[in-house]
Amino acid sequence: MNGKMIGYILCRLMGMEGVLLLLPMAVAILYGEETWAAFFAVAAGLILVSLALGRKKPQNRTIYAKEGLFIVGMAWVLWSACGALPFVISGAIPNFIDAFFEAVSGFTTTGSTVMANVEAMPRGILFWRSFTHWVGGMGVLVFVMAIIPLSDKNSLYLMRAEMPGPTAGKLVPKAMSTAKILYAIYIGMTLVQVVLMMLGGVSLYDSLVYTFGTAGTGGFSIHADSIAHYHSVYIDVVVTVFMILFGINFNLFYLILIGQVVQALKSEELRWYLGIILASIAMIAVNIYSLYGSVAQSVRYSAFQVGSIITTTGYATADFAQWPYFSQTILLLLMVLGACAGSTGGGIKTIRLIILLKSIRREIRRMVHPRSVGLVRAEGKVVEEDTVHGVHVYLITYFVIMFLSVLLVSINGFDLVTTISSVFTCLNNVGPGLGPVVGPMGSFAPLSSLSKIVLSLDMLIGRLEIFPILLLIMPALWRKH
Amino acid sequence: MNGKMIGYILCRLMGMEGVLLLLPMAVAILYGEETWAAFFAVAAGLILVSLALGRKKPQNRTIYAKEGLFIVGMAWVLWSACGALPFVISGAIPNFIDAFFEAVSGFTTTGSTVMANVEAMPRGILFWRSFTHWVGGMGVLVFVMAIIPLSDKNSLYLMRAEMPGPTAGKLVPKAMSTAKILYAIYIGMTLVQVVLMMLGGVSLYDSLVYTFGTAGTGGFSIHADSIAHYHSVYIDVVVTVFMILFGINFNLFYLILIGQVVQALKSEELRWYLGIILASIAMIAVNIYSLYGSVAQSVRYSAFQVGSIITTTGYATADFAQWPYFSQTILLLLMVLGACAGSTGGGIKTIRLIILLKSIRREIRRMVHPRSVGLVRAEGKVVEEDTVHGVHVYLITYFVIMFLSVLLVSINGFDLVTTISSVFTCLNNVGPGLGPVVGPMGSFAPLSSLSKIVLSLDMLIGRLEIFPILLLIMPALWRKH
Repeated sequence: MNGKMIGYILCRLMGMEGVLLLLPMAVAILYGEETWAAFFAVAAGLILVSLALGRKKPQNRTIYAKEGLFIVGMAWVLWSACGALPFVISGAIPNFIDAFFEAVSGFTTTGSTVMANVEAMPRGILFWRSFTHWVGGMGVLVFVMAIIPLSDKNSLYLMRAEMPGPTAGKLVPKAMSTAKILYAIYIGMTLVQVVLMMLGGVSLYDSLVYTFGTAGTGGFSIHADSIAHYHSVYIDVVVTVFMILFGINFNLFYLILIGQVVQALKSEELRWYLGIILASIAMIAVNIYSLYGSVAQSVRYSAFQVGSIITTTGYATADFAQWPYFSQTILLLLMVLGACAGSTGGGIKTIRLIILLKSIRREIRRMVHPRSVGLVRAEGKVVEEDTVHGVHVYLITYFVIMFLSVLLVSINGFDLVTTISSVFTCLNNVGPGLGPVVGPMGSFAPLSSLSKIVLSLDMLIGRLEIFPILLLIMPALWRKH
Repeated sequence: MNGKMIGYILCRLMGMEGVLLLLPMAVAILYGEETWAAFFAVAAGLILVSLALGRKKPQNRTIYAKEGLFIVGMAWVLWSACGALPFVISGAIPNFIDAFFEAVSGFTTTGSTVMANVEAMPRGILFWRSFTHWVGGMGVLVFVMAIIPLSDKNSLYLMRAEMPGPTAGKLVPKAMSTAKILYAIYIGMTLVQVVLMMLGGVSLYDSLVYTFGTAGTGGFSIHADSIAHYHSVYIDVVVTVFMILFGINFNLFYLILIGQVVQALKSEELRWYLGIILASIAMIAVNIYSLYGSVAQSVRYSAFQVGSIITTTGYATADFAQWPYFSQTILLLLMVLGACAGSTGGGIKTIRLIILLKSIRREIRRMVHPRSVGLVRAEGKVVEEDTVHGVHVYLITYFVIMFLSVLLVSINGFDLVTTISSVFTCLNNVGPGLGPVVGPMGSFAPLSSLSKIVLSLDMLIGRLEIFPILLLIMPALWRKH
């Protein structure tokens, strides 16, 4: 392991977080809130440490997959730990474990909160909380790569370890340029949503905060009743559409940008994703029709919740914990599925489902016709056996972690629905769970510290797709055989 | 597909079921119950059809893996459908779907019941119900193979499709001899348990019925309070020990029989299995200590329930739906895990867990050290890559079926704990679920017909390890690519 290079990159990353903290500080000052000092203290500390320790670039700048995984894992833990400090220092969330949970939930774009009374919180604090969604959505390191120059090979290892999905593609030959293009699309779409929300009469502050949560598919809210606060069909539609857009692979937006619209629309993952969304909206709308009494209202609430859950955003316009169990089960399955690879959404990703189902079909064919070869095809191309195998291992590891987490959280003594749904929602970076405690109108505050630590790890595991965090908590895995 | 040979084997199989039905008929006559006529009618019908259609052995007797899977799938569905008829004709379970559910639950050794008041049922009916556990435990086809001569190659394809576990081993060169040895061990152990239960003051009838349920790891009971009915520590201990014994790979008993005791005790799967049992008993005993007030009582109830659930038997001496959620979660995880390969127990089997965990570790090592090779070793041997891959595909298919079943059962509108635990318990052939409806003191009678059909398929899928049933319900999979 190239310790010096790891230290150097981590130092630069922490300095960058210090710079980002100046933004909520400005918001706090603008609204005349005392919490600006908390942001200032942490920002100054991070920038100073970064300048003191991270100035000298090491001689040997080579890093490999191993270092890439380690840096990504460490970076996310450190960003969350330091990002939690303003909550603690300002007194908004006095307990560090709670604050760490909130910061992890922010960066991982989960949106589960320990704040029982969110409307009483200072605006600077709420701004920072939602801003972490926006930064974490596209990736902490992708963000940094777009700004700090690194060699192309180094960047790619970092990018691979952070990008969601079974294969990390570069859009253009240089990883750094790819990062810049991705961020340009991300910023552009964010601005459009802010403008559209303001056209609906929402204030700039509110529009920014809710757009951060939409873009990152995070879901932190500044009102107890989330988006339902605005009682506006227009706002519901805007947020629904943008949640679904931010759940699409950003590569497709790039294709559209460079004029290859037809090729983008041919994407198999996109078609499955939209198909599953439409089918789920229809099934739930029928199931909840008797609650809302009109087709339009049923579809409105169904579409919003489906969009919110499949993209793992977690906003709510209805307390779906009160819906019939069939609808709740669909939402629970959508939580696990998640959005498309290469988007800001969590879950196991649509492309993995496609590869999975096709590989199962292939295996059964092989069982019936032992001499048939059979290749798995997706997106019009043959999927390499390594990728198929990787998807299998990923999913199995995912389920093992899920079962283990449920066991650990169950020590807390809450009912099974609370226990299981809180693991589901955190591991998939969704936000709200089911039941009265962690449901869309509840908070994670009543859970024990052990549960919060387990769920924090689950959120990180979900966002970073398991392995960087697994390696961090099980150093024995680093050893050679 | 060799249709003639398939028809021939299926005819012989149905005739065999007719012969088996004479046993409960005798019990009914012995107790002077009118239900003997129902058994007689079905037995006579099956034997006559078998004699009429299954006498001529076809010229071409070759069957391959494809035919093996089809025969096994069809045989289990037909045995269950015909085994359900005495319930319907006698009026014990008037609805055919309910009766089919009960018969599937019997043959698959699940033990979930639709009988709300089991103590009011005729003795012949209850005997047949429990006898299906005993026959299904070792396998319908293994049973038939031990009696009807088939060519060795044909037998092996059938055996592979029916035996639980990732690899079906022959103990001796001839498959038919293997089947005979397995049944000899099975009968021997059954007799020992019957004698031990009778020494505890239990009547012959009760001893037989409860031993059938233990040996097949089924769990049908003839008292509303299951084994707790006897209020006897001795009986609890006997049943606990035998449940755990019948969850062990029968190959190990064969090794012990031929004097290779040391080699049997070296089995990695056995050590994991016993280790998991001991750890679970300890954790639950501590967790429920406050409910029972003494170490001895806590261990007694904990050990019984752990043995009952991990072997997927499903007997109960306590209403564990009332236990703390941590204990319930452990039981839920043990349900999924199940017993050893090559035993009568269900679940995903301990050996699959071992291969799974080791292959995950190998994959992570590969990620850190891309050039390392790394083989998965289990039971002191290198596991072939095909087997590792097969375990992955098996588990992933298993989870896909689980999610789909939960969705279908949720249409029924029961709460999530009932919905999820009924799928868990049926797919793993356990028996009782959690919650007031399907918990250890409840019954599956209140569920809808759709749910019962889905859960019947889940039980068959669990017992036959997915593929024979999947092929039966999705004929498109038979087509060549």
